[in-house]
Amino acid sequence: MKIIDISVPLRQGMVVWPGDRPVEIRRLKSDEEGRSNVSELCLSDHTGTHVDPPLHYVPGGRPIDELPLDPFLGSADVVDFPGVDSITAADLERRGIPGDCRRLLLRTRNSDYWARGDNEFHKDYVSLSLDGAEWVVRRGVLLVGIDYLSIAPYGAQGAAVHRALLGAGVIALETVNLSGVSPGRYQLACLPLLIAGGDGAPTRAVLWTDE
Amino acid sequence: MKIIDISVPLRQGMVVWPGDRPVEIRRLKSDEEGRSNVSELCLSDHTGTHVDPPLHYVPGGRPIDELPLDPFLGSADVVDFPGVDSITAADLERRGIPGDCRRLLLRTRNSDYWARGDNEFHKDYVSLSLDGAEWVVRRGVLLVGIDYLSIAPYGAQGAAVHRALLGAGVIALETVNLSGVSPGRYQLACLPLLIAGGDGAPTRAVLWTDE
Repeated sequence: MKIIDISVPLRQGMVVWPGDRPVEIRRLKSDEEGRSNVSELCLSDHTGTHVDPPLHYVPGGRPIDELPLDPFLGSADVVDFPGVDSITAADLERRGIPGDCRRLLLRTRNSDYWARGDNEFHKDYVSLSLDGAEWVVRRGVLLVGIDYLSIAPYGAQGAAVHRALLGAGVIALETVNLSGVSPGRYQLACLPLLIAGGDGAPTRAVLWTDE
Repeated sequence: MKIIDISVPLRQGMVVWPGDRPVEIRRLKSDEEGRSNVSELCLSDHTGTHVDPPLHYVPGGRPIDELPLDPFLGSADVVDFPGVDSITAADLERRGIPGDCRRLLLRTRNSDYWARGDNEFHKDYVSLSLDGAEWVVRRGVLLVGIDYLSIAPYGAQGAAVHRALLGAGVIALETVNLSGVSPGRYQLACLPLLIAGGDGAPTRAVLWTDE
């Protein structure tokens, strides 16, 4: 079994959504005192590789701990969108995505940021358009992932795209690093931290094949 | 595929190791303002269901982000220890644990605490003894999990048990809820958050079978 880590590491000062809480990691106890090493971690629940449940954008929507686990474990299709700035329904249609796709990972030029260790926020990241989100919902996809901090475009349209997905119960997986991942079918695990009532949750996301 | 969640939920005020940082979860943005719901999460990296890498107890040991992923994904054996207070090498030997066991989950009366929502810390939890830890190391197990906040006994002996495991590169998975899980072989995913330099990391742990 070959496991591919598609997670973006959590570290102090890492890029976060504009205005979001910075990541703080601080050692509380140290082995220099002959004890164990223990640290504290303070972060927004939408930091690094993370999952959006309906509650993130839908008033009264399901929180993390009320979600079924199927979206987070099972086969997934990595689909490449080179040279695309906004992924539309037409773009998705053209890719010949398998009809039984239940977990869809969108690989774009955003992954180059992770590959080169870029830590700036870029407003012009590649995202899913509103009609692209509607296509995903129509196709019965359980989870859609993208290689930037948001699946939705920056600015006013962002809420509409989130609501189209989350309102239909489609989970978003955000901030994955798909650089170096070839398009195709994999097994995916991206089980989010079990946060009671959580409106988001960090996760460790990996792909594997049985080869 | 039937997925069994063996994670203990993260929530404000949940039981933590004595002296450890309490869990604080606070909403930063709310949909009542027509925006998204976003929260912050502050916790010790050894809170709730979590993983101990060597760095937790071994000076210069490997942190979370330098671990191979094999311990966290693959077949696992759930083994029951009813009526046992400290799991010794003899106890392990008697269980007839399969020779190809690479991930071992110890189910004890500790799981009753999670089943009944007990939120107190109990010093007399069931743990792994030092010779039990040495048995686990000898058998080539990659990861050993237990249903309480520590794999090791409370008090002075705790460091020795941790060091026996972590010093040999055996990962500990702590604070899982195995109540209602029948002994036997499963598939396990317990991929820890990718914390750069992390001396511990929360995880979502699940078991599944292909039935």
